[in-house]
Amino acid sequence: MHDRKLRVALIGAGRIGRMHAAHIAHRLPEATLAAVVDLNEEAARACAERYQARWHTRYEAVLQDSRIDAVAICTTSTTHTEIIEAAAAAGKHIFCEKPIDLTLARIDHALRCVRKAGVLLQVGFQRRFDPGFQRVRQAITAGEIGEPHSVHIISRDPSPPPIAFLASSGGLFLDMSIHDFDMAYFLLRQPIRRVYATGAVRIDPAIRQIDDVDTATVVLQCADETFVTIENSRQATFGYDQRLEVFGSRGSIRLENVYPNTTVRLVQGGLKRDNPHHFFIERYRDAYVSELRAFTEAALRGGPSPLSGEDARVSVEVGLAALHSLRTGLPVDLAPA
Amino acid sequence: MHDRKLRVALIGAGRIGRMHAAHIAHRLPEATLAAVVDLNEEAARACAERYQARWHTRYEAVLQDSRIDAVAICTTSTTHTEIIEAAAAAGKHIFCEKPIDLTLARIDHALRCVRKAGVLLQVGFQRRFDPGFQRVRQAITAGEIGEPHSVHIISRDPSPPPIAFLASSGGLFLDMSIHDFDMAYFLLRQPIRRVYATGAVRIDPAIRQIDDVDTATVVLQCADETFVTIENSRQATFGYDQRLEVFGSRGSIRLENVYPNTTVRLVQGGLKRDNPHHFFIERYRDAYVSELRAFTEAALRGGPSPLSGEDARVSVEVGLAALHSLRTGLPVDLAPA
Amino acid sequence: MHDRKLRVALIGAGRIGRMHAAHIAHRLPEATLAAVVDLNEEAARACAERYQARWHTRYEAVLQDSRIDAVAICTTSTTHTEIIEAAAAAGKHIFCEKPIDLTLARIDHALRCVRKAGVLLQVGFQRRFDPGFQRVRQAITAGEIGEPHSVHIISRDPSPPPIAFLASSGGLFLDMSIHDFDMAYFLLRQPIRRVYATGAVRIDPAIRQIDDVDTATVVLQCADETFVTIENSRQATFGYDQRLEVFGSRGSIRLENVYPNTTVRLVQGGLKRDNPHHFFIERYRDAYVSELRAFTEAALRGGPSPLSGEDARVSVEVGLAALHSLRTGLPVDLAPA
Amino acid sequence: MHDRKLRVALIGAGRIGRMHAAHIAHRLPEATLAAVVDLNEEAARACAERYQARWHTRYEAVLQDSRIDAVAICTTSTTHTEIIEAAAAAGKHIFCEKPIDLTLARIDHALRCVRKAGVLLQVGFQRRFDPGFQRVRQAITAGEIGEPHSVHIISRDPSPPPIAFLASSGGLFLDMSIHDFDMAYFLLRQPIRRVYATGAVRIDPAIRQIDDVDTATVVLQCADETFVTIENSRQATFGYDQRLEVFGSRGSIRLENVYPNTTVRLVQGGLKRDNPHHFFIERYRDAYVSELRAFTEAALRGGPSPLSGEDARVSVEVGLAALHSLRTGLPVDLAPA
Repeated sequence: MHDRKLRVALIGAGRIGRMHAAHIAHRLPEATLAAVVDLNEEAARACAERYQARWHTRYEAVLQDSRIDAVAICTTSTTHTEIIEAAAAAGKHIFCEKPIDLTLARIDHALRCVRKAGVLLQVGFQRRFDPGFQRVRQAITAGEIGEPHSVHIISRDPSPPPIAFLASSGGLFLDMSIHDFDMAYFLLRQPIRRVYATGAVRIDPAIRQIDDVDTATVVLQCADETFVTIENSRQATFGYDQRLEVFGSRGSIRLENVYPNTTVRLVQGGLKRDNPHHFFIERYRDAYVSELRAFTEAALRGGPSPLSGEDARVSVEVGLAALHSLRTGLPVDLAPA
Repeated sequence: MHDRKLRVALIGAGRIGRMHAAHIAHRLPEATLAAVVDLNEEAARACAERYQARWHTRYEAVLQDSRIDAVAICTTSTTHTEIIEAAAAAGKHIFCEKPIDLTLARIDHALRCVRKAGVLLQVGFQRRFDPGFQRVRQAITAGEIGEPHSVHIISRDPSPPPIAFLASSGGLFLDMSIHDFDMAYFLLRQPIRRVYATGAVRIDPAIRQIDDVDTATVVLQCADETFVTIENSRQATFGYDQRLEVFGSRGSIRLENVYPNTTVRLVQGGLKRDNPHHFFIERYRDAYVSELRAFTEAALRGGPSPLSGEDARVSVEVGLAALHSLRTGLPVDLAPA
Repeated sequence: MHDRKLRVALIGAGRIGRMHAAHIAHRLPEATLAAVVDLNEEAARACAERYQARWHTRYEAVLQDSRIDAVAICTTSTTHTEIIEAAAAAGKHIFCEKPIDLTLARIDHALRCVRKAGVLLQVGFQRRFDPGFQRVRQAITAGEIGEPHSVHIISRDPSPPPIAFLASSGGLFLDMSIHDFDMAYFLLRQPIRRVYATGAVRIDPAIRQIDDVDTATVVLQCADETFVTIENSRQATFGYDQRLEVFGSRGSIRLENVYPNTTVRLVQGGLKRDNPHHFFIERYRDAYVSELRAFTEAALRGGPSPLSGEDARVSVEVGLAALHSLRTGLPVDLAPA
Repeated sequence: MHDRKLRVALIGAGRIGRMHAAHIAHRLPEATLAAVVDLNEEAARACAERYQARWHTRYEAVLQDSRIDAVAICTTSTTHTEIIEAAAAAGKHIFCEKPIDLTLARIDHALRCVRKAGVLLQVGFQRRFDPGFQRVRQAITAGEIGEPHSVHIISRDPSPPPIAFLASSGGLFLDMSIHDFDMAYFLLRQPIRRVYATGAVRIDPAIRQIDDVDTATVVLQCADETFVTIENSRQATFGYDQRLEVFGSRGSIRLENVYPNTTVRLVQGGLKRDNPHHFFIERYRDAYVSELRAFTEAALRGGPSPLSGEDARVSVEVGLAALHSLRTGLPVDLAPA
């Protein structure tokens, strides 16, 4: 046991930030939500008052506050590296939502700052903390399916976000597929050598106007010639579609969708189940708690990051290659590190 | 290989008889449909001509015909023992649809005739030849689930037959549940010591008029204190419902319904599968072929009956006890053999 | 929102009590764990200190404490009614673990005291708060499966508790099946008119020494002639087996076991899934939180009990009838209320 | 009904040929196996005698025989077009195993001969006749899943054939993936515009010696920007792996593997099912019968080919493009027809 709780400041009280705030306050006995920062004063205050926390409109306030041990960065992606660098310089531990940034140079600079400061940085790819994906990883490391030969990842959202959001999202590959690139790397732990990406606008023509796609298929080729196929769509009418299968020399493991209950009906039209969880908040609720628990424990006890910046960087590198492949119509090689 | 095929005469060209005729003609290379008998001349002729067989309106004709090796009795239940006895006296091998009869005394007399004549008698409980039920039996004999402790059988028809049929069917327990009683005995190979049956009219009030029930729950207690629960209904809106589970000291095995295909849809209303096979003709098609193949092989090669009269008698004994239990509201004990 | 939290005193800091304590402290923002009572001083103190609560060895102390709004009774079953009556007299709201008691007369006396005092009493049948069982209930009330005709409930523990516990448990029917009796009543909302129970010792001969059974099959007959079959066992080698199916005039709904993850492996020996959740703590974790949330809300806002004593009494009545049926070998009728 | 049966000559009495012979003789009442041809006299005679058919060592014999209506060509692929052309010239209807040939020029020449002769040509892509794949096709045409956006096909054999066979097989794409290319075309009915193929040797280094791969991932891009991913492997330790999913604007349909029975076991290690059918003979038994039934009916009644040469040609065209893509590492465009 520890003498005291990890005192966390939330920076960015949007949807995902408010979710983390609730988890810190109610689900993590070893952490406490000490402060909330948001450029929007009302948003900061409303969230802070809910949990009896202090509030600010500028993140510098919490970096200067010695009563804060760690920050959780949930602002828009383009501001991440600036805050990471400032927080690292202030000696605060850092939980940062994905992606760190959309530019490798800025990521690399921020990671150098973090290493230099010796603080903890954990990036928010929450799927790695989901019991389903972890079971897949375990099957691989335990040799249950032998040596992986191919991976198939399905990741589809129930419906597209507003065009305004999409326009600043970095595009399908860096906003959405990035989770799948990270998952491929997490599961296989192999350098990714080549990326071939295709995509189309099948759902909403407005997405073509912002030079993005809403449907995509990507092939990753790993150094050991394991091939990963990824299917993405901005719209699955039946809900959040999060599935995966790893096929190996001794067998296969697949992760099915997760349902709100395990009932099955036999009725006139056939066998029926309810839809799977509708979206990420429901599907990954426990994973979001687990990633923050892992962060809290690493911060309180010391020890390596459960999901380091260097680890998370791979997904951005692959995402940028996918974007280039889509635009050129050709496979893109990634240089060995 | 054999020098010649088994020459079979079909007696009774109703629905089940015509199905057997097609199987003998097209699916069993070692058997040939040599003759068809039906009281209805047109029915006999139509079926016979389809397969280039001879036809008669009286079964005695085929019993006297030295070109006939075996008979398949598919007439109404009340005529079975008379034909069995005559066929046995004529030295013909006998395949007889279930049940042999609804009276134990008549069954016992017929079985004595069969034993005396030394002919083969096989009763048509086709489920024993279904790969699913056989897999359950195999799991038990191989010890995969340890010693059986309890069994649950679900057997529901898609919809009730005409009242006229029901009125002469022997009632739910002897017409329908009898398959489940036979299955319990086939799987457990334990004497059944006590029967408690309940039932109700939930589907069609007309069934009450003929003093029958359309919905029933029966509990069988075996000599080793394994308990079997059986759920029957004359009407399952989603199709033929044929499931079973055996729970034992080391695990459980359950048999699910069988579907015409293995597709699964994910659509707006949830996950969907098509209905299972609609009724017994579709569900047990291969089992019906297999039981006749087993009969053909036993007849051509000699050897014990794949499903003897003595074996099939148990289900009638239990069925009569169930009927008595329903009427008295009390459990009924069966005397040890 | 409320001005203040519900201040709860836990009475009985055994396994289930400590689980409730953790939920009150960490999962229920609207409640606070104010005190812990246990006859064993060390148990009371350890639990209380974990959550910064007060502690006592006698329950009277919290009943006299005006800073306590409600009690959660988790002591042995035989002490429930005494504490309920005292708590009601002291004007405290009461959450009580199942069963209220094993004697109908004592239950009825306690319920009269509760009604007279006008306090809230909620009994701890947590399954009613599980999303799976609630989905089944919803299917029934929404008419998705038509009018229920039969119900099948499977409830098996992974392994028997110590004989010492069993000896004072009230026996299989009142300790374990009672959850299933309650579930049948919760789902069907029909008076139960007749009970036929069978049972055997198949797992551990020591259970015979204490005049109990470890394996049982029970049939309940409802006023509307819906039949419920229940299969219980003290030992399922594959983990906690909690399944249920309701068959009705328009279809069927079944609740499958719940698994810690949704992965499926295809390996040399066939398709495999991990075991379902091992026991009730894992299987019903969210249900335990939900029942206390419902209790907290009812206590803070007023309103009827989410699971009243009168409602919970039915299961004891059925349990006693089942015990009598087992001993006599005959069905037992329950008098209309 | 027809006056007479279709008289079929089997050309090539290898494994697949003998399977077709059995189906013609025992499962197709409207066809008769009249002759068997094999260069190996013993193979021809053994197969013919089994079904009381004539036998020859040269196919010309059956082409000159006026008692033959149709031929079923099951010889090695390189001989197909020669026999097709001769059979067409002789006015025989033609069932030909896949692929027609591995050279588009030879295929086109043969198809011209067939058209000129006005005979029926059906190519043996049996999966199109499987009820599972047909159900998927039906879901698409009926709009159950809306407009298809992406397809994922898994096709893996239980173990690689002998190297000698592989060396003359045309390689993974033309021997094995060709079924998947045909399936994509059958389901989507869209021109395939671009092919990107990757592959590796992961199972047996000897396969590298013959310049082939044993593991592959292929992406097809259709004219309407539907993307198809295909995963192939020569070795799935759990048996024949034949799955498919089509995702569309209104939902998804997937085809699962087919199992020899529907039993599920719950045992100490978790939930288990037996392996799926081991290989194509078991998995597609009914599909093989259905394709010959469709051929027989088309030949007897006239009417278009159930699977024409022009239709089957697409898969070879895609296969050749896949091979080129694998060798160049680049996507290959297919010219519009």
